[in-house]
Amino acid sequence: MNTLFGQPLKVVNCGLVSFADNLRRAGGEVEHVSWQPPALGDLEAGLDLAYLMRHPLVEQANETAFARYLEAQPVLCDIVTASDAISAMNERKLILHSGPPIAWANMCGPVQGAIIGAVMLEGWAADHASAERLVLDGKIDLEPCHHYNAVGPMAGIISPSMPLFVIQNKSNGHRTYCNFNEGLGKVLRFGANSEEVLTRLRWMKPTLAPALKAALRVSGEIDLKPLMAQALHMGDEVHNRNSAATGLFIKRIMPALLEVDLPLAQIRDVSAAIIGNDHFFLNISMAACKAMMDAAANVPFSSMVSVMARNGVNFGIRLSGTGDQWFQARANPVEGLFFPGYGVDDAAADLGDSAITETAGVGGFAMASSPAIVKFVGGTPADASANSRRMQAITLGGNPAFTLPALDFAPTAAGIDARMVADRRILPVINTGIAHKRAGVGQIGAGITTAPMECFVDAIRALASTVRQHTGQTS
Amino acid sequence: MNTLFGQPLKVVNCGLVSFADNLRRAGGEVEHVSWQPPALGDLEAGLDLAYLMRHPLVEQANETAFARYLEAQPVLCDIVTASDAISAMNERKLILHSGPPIAWANMCGPVQGAIIGAVMLEGWAADHASAERLVLDGKIDLEPCHHYNAVGPMAGIISPSMPLFVIQNKSNGHRTYCNFNEGLGKVLRFGANSEEVLTRLRWMKPTLAPALKAALRVSGEIDLKPLMAQALHMGDEVHNRNSAATGLFIKRIMPALLEVDLPLAQIRDVSAAIIGNDHFFLNISMAACKAMMDAAANVPFSSMVSVMARNGVNFGIRLSGTGDQWFQARANPVEGLFFPGYGVDDAAADLGDSAITETAGVGGFAMASSPAIVKFVGGTPADASANSRRMQAITLGGNPAFTLPALDFAPTAAGIDARMVADRRILPVINTGIAHKRAGVGQIGAGITTAPMECFVDAIRALASTVRQHTGQTS
Repeated sequence: MNTLFGQPLKVVNCGLVSFADNLRRAGGEVEHVSWQPPALGDLEAGLDLAYLMRHPLVEQANETAFARYLEAQPVLCDIVTASDAISAMNERKLILHSGPPIAWANMCGPVQGAIIGAVMLEGWAADHASAERLVLDGKIDLEPCHHYNAVGPMAGIISPSMPLFVIQNKSNGHRTYCNFNEGLGKVLRFGANSEEVLTRLRWMKPTLAPALKAALRVSGEIDLKPLMAQALHMGDEVHNRNSAATGLFIKRIMPALLEVDLPLAQIRDVSAAIIGNDHFFLNISMAACKAMMDAAANVPFSSMVSVMARNGVNFGIRLSGTGDQWFQARANPVEGLFFPGYGVDDAAADLGDSAITETAGVGGFAMASSPAIVKFVGGTPADASANSRRMQAITLGGNPAFTLPALDFAPTAAGIDARMVADRRILPVINTGIAHKRAGVGQIGAGITTAPMECFVDAIRALASTVRQHTGQTS
Repeated sequence: MNTLFGQPLKVVNCGLVSFADNLRRAGGEVEHVSWQPPALGDLEAGLDLAYLMRHPLVEQANETAFARYLEAQPVLCDIVTASDAISAMNERKLILHSGPPIAWANMCGPVQGAIIGAVMLEGWAADHASAERLVLDGKIDLEPCHHYNAVGPMAGIISPSMPLFVIQNKSNGHRTYCNFNEGLGKVLRFGANSEEVLTRLRWMKPTLAPALKAALRVSGEIDLKPLMAQALHMGDEVHNRNSAATGLFIKRIMPALLEVDLPLAQIRDVSAAIIGNDHFFLNISMAACKAMMDAAANVPFSSMVSVMARNGVNFGIRLSGTGDQWFQARANPVEGLFFPGYGVDDAAADLGDSAITETAGVGGFAMASSPAIVKFVGGTPADASANSRRMQAITLGGNPAFTLPALDFAPTAAGIDARMVADRRILPVINTGIAHKRAGVGQIGAGITTAPMECFVDAIRALASTVRQHTGQTS
């Protein structure tokens, strides 16, 4: 001991950084290792994690799941009415919402407001009060979009009469769905449900939907990965910024729209709605990402995250290897910029299925491709690149279909490995809009948030139990 | 001396780098200063340069010229036929070409080919041989676009019947012009003059031009700086890459096109031509840059470069302070990537008025905004950023209207100061397409080139003489 302290010491500090600071102040040479115990310091979960790490079953399953994700070829092929795509809607009054399952009483304001709007849109009630009565009386079933191969931004409401984008994954024939984007301002997805909102939604079915459907028949299916890849080279991350992607979509759809046999006035209306909405492509992007993630879902023992979604109260994830099971925790707050007059107290919790874009390696994971959005959510282009790089530490690989110019055309980090998240305590980063907590006010800001760690720790526990069960081990 | 060499030496080497290398190899500590004599080492020109450096007349003139450049507000306001915009075309058979003035006999293949095509387009001759005869007999006047407030890409041919974009600078009312982009493949601007090429050009006047003219009446004038600024945030540098800018233009013009009272078949044709041509905006970008540079032109004593242009043989520049005078030198070769089957021996020299974009601070000067184009011209995103940064050393300031996300939203370097170019031996960088040296083959590659130093040294000499004359000094 005396020999040890008799010589000049180089200290490696692991744990509290203040220990290192004190030694440094006393003139010592210290290297601080930033480390925290994995799995939130929970011993049992930590042992589960250690068990799963490099487990051959998990490794092999992840290889399969990731390969299926990479192989996915989502194309926009059709427009259908929700009740034609989701047969359960013909059997009962069913409305879909974003995120994991949640009971009416626990829902946040914007989601409740949007559901009331949808009940009225469907003609099931004539006013807000009777619409709410129907829901309270249990006459309306409320279920997650994700239970029906669908996704929706923010409140994510899909009701039977709504037209949906149909995306088909050519690698497995599987179909996914998303509703149409309403533009900004007073919109259902932020909980607004006034007559103005319902009028716009009512316009979609007879006007927008048939025109797009007919145009798609002329243009043929639209291959979405190359379009999204090009948009990533044009400043979009195809979650919060879809300006370039919408422009590329317009280049594909407009010549076809001009060929369809519909009144010129309708073509004008439809063109104006698409051209005037820089977020038009968001819903297509989401359904394309859902198609890629559905391809990777349900591979037994895989620790790859197949869904991340928020219902305005809880954040939920699913792993490929644990099938339809949700792992939920309260949503983290959003760090961002608020529109003038609003602040964090006005904000609803993190909301929407749009985190499917991050699950698929774009959105926040591709922030480096979208330095211009950094100003919108608060930050610098260097932050954006750092976010994209940090995600490489918790993902199974890179997606060569999506490359990031600012990182010298490196592939975007993709295939979140729940083990890595829990072990390295690096949370998936998500770009997101911020909704007002009261129904109908709308968007009040935008920013960056993260998935909560508890989801990943719980998922690890469940996966470990599955693997142990399969191999005949007990925990 | 003995005392000097008796101590450990730190050497600063200025001049040949091999001196520093030798010292380093012998174990010495050397700092090499990269320096070459200014003004190509020409003593007289060097003295002229020293005279102009920080000369109050030049400084003040540059401030004025640069302010006028920044204030320019180019808008696309109309489409006109060339003979309506350029009155000289009604008095004689006049064809405009790119770059500084050049006689027919000295022109490169693509420019000669394009002129023959234009003679036939105008109906002045029925075949190639008689068209060439007309030119050889001096029946056709050939002058630079720049002499008529106009610009044209590559061969840059403007003949009387061609429709032109009209850009007006709202800050001074001045108008500039550019022809229409023909798309890729066999096109007049690369010297092709077959029936296919002439048919496309003939289609423009009765079909494309009136539709665009009518649409502009509906949409109102289109403000070009904000559109270009947005495109710079979407991967364009609005010279060799105009994909985003063309998309933004489509978003502006399509709704208006759907309102005009013209046959649907014509609208379809026109839409297809614009939507199918990612370079459609290039010619608008060039005329907008010409408008900004014309605003800065003709400020006595200013050393700011107001024009850089190439005629396929010579590179020519104009300074604001020396008016209409051209300073020319043989064009530098283009370093770039060739399409398969072609090499440097097949290439025409640097060609076209499109370097007006670099003169205005975009194009190669804004390469940092367009990492994706780097692959097209050969290089890395780091090269692109380095190019943009290096241009800061030879420019009068930054243009806050054009910011570069990859450089943390720094304004693009703008207002080339001929003094700085000659003093620092840093040449303006230019993104460019490469034409085959034979007429009609078309584009065979793309790359990066520089303006030749001789132009700047000659311009410095002329400017020094003007300043001396004014102040009553003799050189």
